[in-house]
Amino acid sequence: MTTLLSPAALEAALRDIGHRRYHNLHPFHAALHGGRLSRDQVRAWALNRYFYQAMIPVKDATILARMQDPALRRIWRQRIVDHDGTGDGDGGLERWLKLTDSLDFPRDYVVSTRGLLPVTRYAVQAYVEFVRERSLLEAIASSLTEMFAPTIISERLAGMLANYDFISPQALGYFDKRLSQAPRDADFALDYVKQHATSVALQQSVLAALAFKCDVLWAQLDGLHHAYVTPGLPPPGAWIPGMELAS
Amino acid sequence: MTTLLSPAALEAALRDIGHRRYHNLHPFHAALHGGRLSRDQVRAWALNRYFYQAMIPVKDATILARMQDPALRRIWRQRIVDHDGTGDGDGGLERWLKLTDSLDFPRDYVVSTRGLLPVTRYAVQAYVEFVRERSLLEAIASSLTEMFAPTIISERLAGMLANYDFISPQALGYFDKRLSQAPRDADFALDYVKQHATSVALQQSVLAALAFKCDVLWAQLDGLHHAYVTPGLPPPGAWIPGMELAS
Repeated sequence: MTTLLSPAALEAALRDIGHRRYHNLHPFHAALHGGRLSRDQVRAWALNRYFYQAMIPVKDATILARMQDPALRRIWRQRIVDHDGTGDGDGGLERWLKLTDSLDFPRDYVVSTRGLLPVTRYAVQAYVEFVRERSLLEAIASSLTEMFAPTIISERLAGMLANYDFISPQALGYFDKRLSQAPRDADFALDYVKQHATSVALQQSVLAALAFKCDVLWAQLDGLHHAYVTPGLPPPGAWIPGMELAS
Repeated sequence: MTTLLSPAALEAALRDIGHRRYHNLHPFHAALHGGRLSRDQVRAWALNRYFYQAMIPVKDATILARMQDPALRRIWRQRIVDHDGTGDGDGGLERWLKLTDSLDFPRDYVVSTRGLLPVTRYAVQAYVEFVRERSLLEAIASSLTEMFAPTIISERLAGMLANYDFISPQALGYFDKRLSQAPRDADFALDYVKQHATSVALQQSVLAALAFKCDVLWAQLDGLHHAYVTPGLPPPGAWIPGMELAS
């Protein structure tokens, strides 16, 4: 890409990255939604993704700390409110823990992240590091995977409820909320990126930021697939189905 | 200090730092409250302190990004809400701009920070850097100057209103709000510090953090005093009374 894209063409290029690299294309997700995972494989997914969820407010506060404009901060801080909630038992992170509760993980064990796959930790930490170190524009652009979230969430809700008798609608409350929150967040971030990526170099940087973020999500599923599906080799220290979870 | 202090003794040691090092002891503050500053000297203070105010939400978001506990983040994020407000024209930063408005500074000029004393910038940046780099406990402890804020704010409100006919109660709205916000914030931070500074080394670190923060405030007044009072030598580039403020 060596010429400046129109805002509409930039949006199309961003969407194209999603069509080629978003983690709905990963075999683990197809298996998750298609009912081909065992309960323990679903548990491994929920356990590992907890860490991603837990670091989202940290990631968003890191971005907030880089914003000099109070009006921009007011909009961005809503993401932190959504995830942390307004009191005990509220917020996206709490809703994720209701899912791990329903899958019989002790909360202490989940929150300790003791059983996490190292690759989950590395990928999520790379995301937080990215939004700390790169430009604010790249940090905002890296959130644009939310443009593709509603489709995957709808598939996930329908697929998991239809296919797993151990998953209840209550356990998937996190995704219900995200169906309305993600498009609002994505719309704002997409407008910001289209407005501020005003040179070829800046447009390249936002496209690369979205590709980077797709990698972060993809790598987590690679880790789950390798450890718990094929060949099914959890690394030393990671959670193993059936292990004693003394908290 | 080589023995562990009780929580009450630690609080007393923290208060002692305030009694010896808080910026209410600075001659610039005595002159500000006592009505001995010219309007231009008050303007220099308001212009420079804007940058401190503007970076407070950045500082608090930096601390927020270091907190792993949603309950702790929920409490801390209120500081950001207080400063940024809930919409245009609201919040502590906006109230500070009403003060600089009333002192006839164009907003663009204030927000640009073009006329800032370099020492103001260095001191405030050192504060943000401190909360990014040191332990979370030290970051929280560095906010404890708010324990001493209500006294100085009461003096300031009464002194400035009595002594300066160019200062209205509306222009000091920022401080009205802080009279209730600062004690709430300080109470929480003090409890946190008393609860978490459980070793001699940790207690020394929180005492040093508060002394550091007192230095940050003091250095800003040193800069103002040198530039605008005695000897009255604003460095090149800094705001000078009477200069043209094309925005």
